[in-house]
Amino acid sequence: MHNNSLLIRNVRPLGRNATDLLIRNGKIAAQGTGLDAAETEVINGAGQLLLPGLVDAHTHIDKTFWGQPWQRHQAGPRLIDKIENERRLRRELNLSAEVQSANQIRQAIRMGTTHIRTHVDVDTEIGLSSIEAVLASKETFGDSMTLQLVAFPQSGLMIRPGTRELLEAAIDAGADLVGGIDPGAIDRDPAGHLDCIFDIAERKQVGIDIHLHEADQLGATSIELILERTRALGMQGKVTISHAFCLGMLPDAQLGELITQFQALDITIMTHGPGHIAFPPIKRLYEAGVKICAGSDGIRDAWGPYGNADMLERAMLMGFRSNYRQDDELEMILDICSFGGARVMGEKNYGLDTGCSADFVLVDAQTPTHAIVSRPPRSLVCKAGRIVARNGECLV
Amino acid sequence: MHNNSLLIRNVRPLGRNATDLLIRNGKIAAQGTGLDAAETEVINGAGQLLLPGLVDAHTHIDKTFWGQPWQRHQAGPRLIDKIENERRLRRELNLSAEVQSANQIRQAIRMGTTHIRTHVDVDTEIGLSSIEAVLASKETFGDSMTLQLVAFPQSGLMIRPGTRELLEAAIDAGADLVGGIDPGAIDRDPAGHLDCIFDIAERKQVGIDIHLHEADQLGATSIELILERTRALGMQGKVTISHAFCLGMLPDAQLGELITQFQALDITIMTHGPGHIAFPPIKRLYEAGVKICAGSDGIRDAWGPYGNADMLERAMLMGFRSNYRQDDELEMILDICSFGGARVMGEKNYGLDTGCSADFVLVDAQTPTHAIVSRPPRSLVCKAGRIVARNGECLV
Repeated sequence: MHNNSLLIRNVRPLGRNATDLLIRNGKIAAQGTGLDAAETEVINGAGQLLLPGLVDAHTHIDKTFWGQPWQRHQAGPRLIDKIENERRLRRELNLSAEVQSANQIRQAIRMGTTHIRTHVDVDTEIGLSSIEAVLASKETFGDSMTLQLVAFPQSGLMIRPGTRELLEAAIDAGADLVGGIDPGAIDRDPAGHLDCIFDIAERKQVGIDIHLHEADQLGATSIELILERTRALGMQGKVTISHAFCLGMLPDAQLGELITQFQALDITIMTHGPGHIAFPPIKRLYEAGVKICAGSDGIRDAWGPYGNADMLERAMLMGFRSNYRQDDELEMILDICSFGGARVMGEKNYGLDTGCSADFVLVDAQTPTHAIVSRPPRSLVCKAGRIVARNGECLV
Repeated sequence: MHNNSLLIRNVRPLGRNATDLLIRNGKIAAQGTGLDAAETEVINGAGQLLLPGLVDAHTHIDKTFWGQPWQRHQAGPRLIDKIENERRLRRELNLSAEVQSANQIRQAIRMGTTHIRTHVDVDTEIGLSSIEAVLASKETFGDSMTLQLVAFPQSGLMIRPGTRELLEAAIDAGADLVGGIDPGAIDRDPAGHLDCIFDIAERKQVGIDIHLHEADQLGATSIELILERTRALGMQGKVTISHAFCLGMLPDAQLGELITQFQALDITIMTHGPGHIAFPPIKRLYEAGVKICAGSDGIRDAWGPYGNADMLERAMLMGFRSNYRQDDELEMILDICSFGGARVMGEKNYGLDTGCSADFVLVDAQTPTHAIVSRPPRSLVCKAGRIVARNGECLV
């Protein structure tokens, strides 16, 4: 057999005409019908739908309960109830962030995800232990999953002295980006919070991905402050605003002005299509050329029981919440859950073109929209040319 | 072997302690540990979760495209766009309502549904053909699915002369209830529309199940008119208001007054947890003792690509949309998707108690909430004591 080569016959890339795919040395080496199969392992794609590897660009793999005995959810309704409930459960259950992150990564692989950007808690109680645990998982999975870590001050930054230093240390330890959270609503010092994380980002030469749950004008004001700092520090293309619920709540003209600035400053917006609250108007941003990515957010953790790390289900939920019923609209969502995430993660070789890294998933579906609404088991998941899942089973 | 008997060992009813279940002559004849298995087929339940048969109390099985080649969805955003698009597709595709309803019923059986209330289009273009087709499916499936038909004037009633007579003829042909739709927004004659369907219901001695998408005060006014007629005609316990989006939009005091009347007049509210619009506050109604049921609504039809006839997925969506994250809350939703639906369908022998009809589903899940969020293939579905699906495959 040829080293590291694989021929997949009869697949339909994004629903287009059937073709064969030759994989060699981790890349898509050729495509077309009737490729030469000599000395190559051959897989029959049976006319199934080929999608690029799915990208979960916002999750919390250090905190999932996935694979553990069921935890009854009893936390109260407020954000602070959930943050405190989480810290309590973290102490009581004493779960290993390394084991749990590995559990979620394997589930994600089963579901056809090839790239994850995860926010990892950093605070004065656990220090860098979760960062170290997720870095260990990153090492374990190696080429099977592209993993980016955001050092995430879940419990606040300015209100918890010592957190700034921990965020810096997290970057030094190997985290890829610096995170932030609700500079107005949690820290109640938006300028201080943002100055702090932009300073770290500038000095450490990393990007920023900030959680922004703040509603209405509080959120809009935080966005303005983020934009100011992005411009002042020349950080175009390096800033992601996650959730940005307020974009679904603002007067139209104000939203339009922010969109103009997102374009100018190359800001990425992450949404996961939350269940009960307003969220960014995806199609409007997308059509204006604003970069958008999507993620699972937390799955089955102290925050709630939902989620399964399936980005096709996430695409369904985003479409369902947005009242997108046309195939064109759901194809846009799939683009966000694949190419949109790859872009924010800085992947240069992503996609289904010849020469791209061989990261893809095969599903028994007629069209991309059919895949989103039916979510069949993933027949084959390939990462960097290696088969990492088959018939819904993770092989890693 | 004993006639019509079956012993299922080691199952956990709604997550309670493991027990065995003896099924005889279509009923749960006994439960407990160590039941005598002599002359009885024995199934190992393997400690799985036992749920009562799921109840889809609002769907449109005459119109699904399930099982057909994928239809691209291109209808415009307005209600009237979708109604007209549907009539056009109905003519162009010329699908058989009998075949399509059977396709959805089989999918529902796979998913553990044992009862369906379906709205069936009646209009001056197709007359009673869909009613007859669904009645034929009802005959075909016999004991495998309990099916109720609502004669549904999808295209309007007062604005389409001849529809009233067709609704009456549908009841005479075998439909179980008379339906209605948006008496203010579509017919623009709320009193006339409601007088018409209440008159049919009274004379034919059937219940009413009316679609009410109307927003805000328009919807509230239609509800007031429905309540007036229910009281005047003594139709307590026979009226269902489906969707009732306006209940999620009203001032609190006004909502409270309607809830008091719902209790007094024994009105049932049906919700499916729509993706993008307000909907009834489920927990508030439930805790006030208002009867609630749930359904898939249309799945994969001219209205949109979503849905799979899985009431566990529906429960997930209802919880997700309501921001219900506690197990207690999701157990309430499951109650609505099972007992709530059975109640509105008038089932007397429904449930997991000894003596109940043996309608149940077995899933590999730890708890009811785990089943809702993970939605594993249904290991076993039993309807009236007969195994109708196994390991995710419909046997009917």
